[in-house]
Amino acid sequence: MDNSIPLFVNENLETDNFLSGDEAHHASKVIRLCVGERIQVTDGKGNLVQAIVTEVLRNSVNYSIIEHHKCESKACRLHLAVAPTKNMERYEFMLEKCTEFGFSRLTPIICEHSERTIVKTERLNRVMTAAAKQSLKIIFPVLDESQKFRTFIENCKHVSHKFIAVCSEIEKVPLIKAVPVDGDAVVMIGPEGDFSFTELELALQHGFVAVSLGDSRLRTETAGIAACHTFYVKKE
Amino acid sequence: MDNSIPLFVNENLETDNFLSGDEAHHASKVIRLCVGERIQVTDGKGNLVQAIVTEVLRNSVNYSIIEHHKCESKACRLHLAVAPTKNMERYEFMLEKCTEFGFSRLTPIICEHSERTIVKTERLNRVMTAAAKQSLKIIFPVLDESQKFRTFIENCKHVSHKFIAVCSEIEKVPLIKAVPVDGDAVVMIGPEGDFSFTELELALQHGFVAVSLGDSRLRTETAGIAACHTFYVKKE
Repeated sequence: MDNSIPLFVNENLETDNFLSGDEAHHASKVIRLCVGERIQVTDGKGNLVQAIVTEVLRNSVNYSIIEHHKCESKACRLHLAVAPTKNMERYEFMLEKCTEFGFSRLTPIICEHSERTIVKTERLNRVMTAAAKQSLKIIFPVLDESQKFRTFIENCKHVSHKFIAVCSEIEKVPLIKAVPVDGDAVVMIGPEGDFSFTELELALQHGFVAVSLGDSRLRTETAGIAACHTFYVKKE
Repeated sequence: MDNSIPLFVNENLETDNFLSGDEAHHASKVIRLCVGERIQVTDGKGNLVQAIVTEVLRNSVNYSIIEHHKCESKACRLHLAVAPTKNMERYEFMLEKCTEFGFSRLTPIICEHSERTIVKTERLNRVMTAAAKQSLKIIFPVLDESQKFRTFIENCKHVSHKFIAVCSEIEKVPLIKAVPVDGDAVVMIGPEGDFSFTELELALQHGFVAVSLGDSRLRTETAGIAACHTFYVKKE
């Protein structure tokens, strides 16, 4: 990855040697790329090519590949499961910040105390892609459709490290001391009204470990950012 | 502090036993407090009282104090000096998140590469106060008027621990490994175009230590959140 060369996304990197849609528009109209200029293109799944622009058309920017890189994912993969906030701007901001730090997957979970139960992932996906490009990521996080709390927990059966962030006064460990060095990890974060007692019980029965994100009372989206950044600083 | 009792702000806590302005409006019209109900009131400077509402008037809510607490500030005090972002919503969001985690002071610094050179602190102060109340803080952060980079550095002469977050490829230590256990600390974060070479040189000459906030390329406001959260997790 060369920070000085503009980065574009092409989901069909293996088969198509051109940018299309928004990416072509951005390349031709915003950055105004010319034939002969260097670009980098990723599929957001770990593949990156260094390329040279060969043709700038109305809806397509063609390029010729010079070099191909494959990026392996980091040792510990963080999956965040965060209840959607009432105000979706806050959720978008959280997704943007977490994407900048780096994480592998986000599932909006619908909980008993959730005021919002419908999540439109299209806009979230745009926010995520923009943040991933801006922070030069080659592996983009995956954004799931929302799932009910119980369904999500049952789907997590095979995850090595499972955490649930809780505000209530039960026994819990600070997340910073629980971050695993490798394997997959999932951190669940509840809605404005927190998880219900039943949900917490169910999570503990399913092998989730109760963790704390520090002494402050944090908003849902702040807890998401805090959890992601806790994994990020542990890599250093 | 009792999380279940609503918290209000009264800057003149020592002399006046009533809420006024926005706080009175919030108490009487939004929460609709009645005579006899319990409230907590802070001046945001470390004082907190437990009180009982004695009268609800149009522009004032009077109370009678039951108990007085004094909160001492934490061992390490974090002063953030962050260049304002072009889009002030991002800066507001950063201030909100940092207030939730807890820190002592924010100075907007105007740098050589700053696109924004004017900062209106009135709105920022409102954002900060709302976040401080929401996260039940008794000591609120102080928001300075903006300062030029050079002025700020010269004003930092007597700070024990001084850090400058840099993106460029110079020698630097991870901030997480440099967080001091006590004393005052300041962390400077540059604008979208980063600090200039001259600014970096000047900071190093003035005893600032170059630190890194990890491998990702972070936006200015994300770097601010990351720095603040790094101090926050170190307390655990």
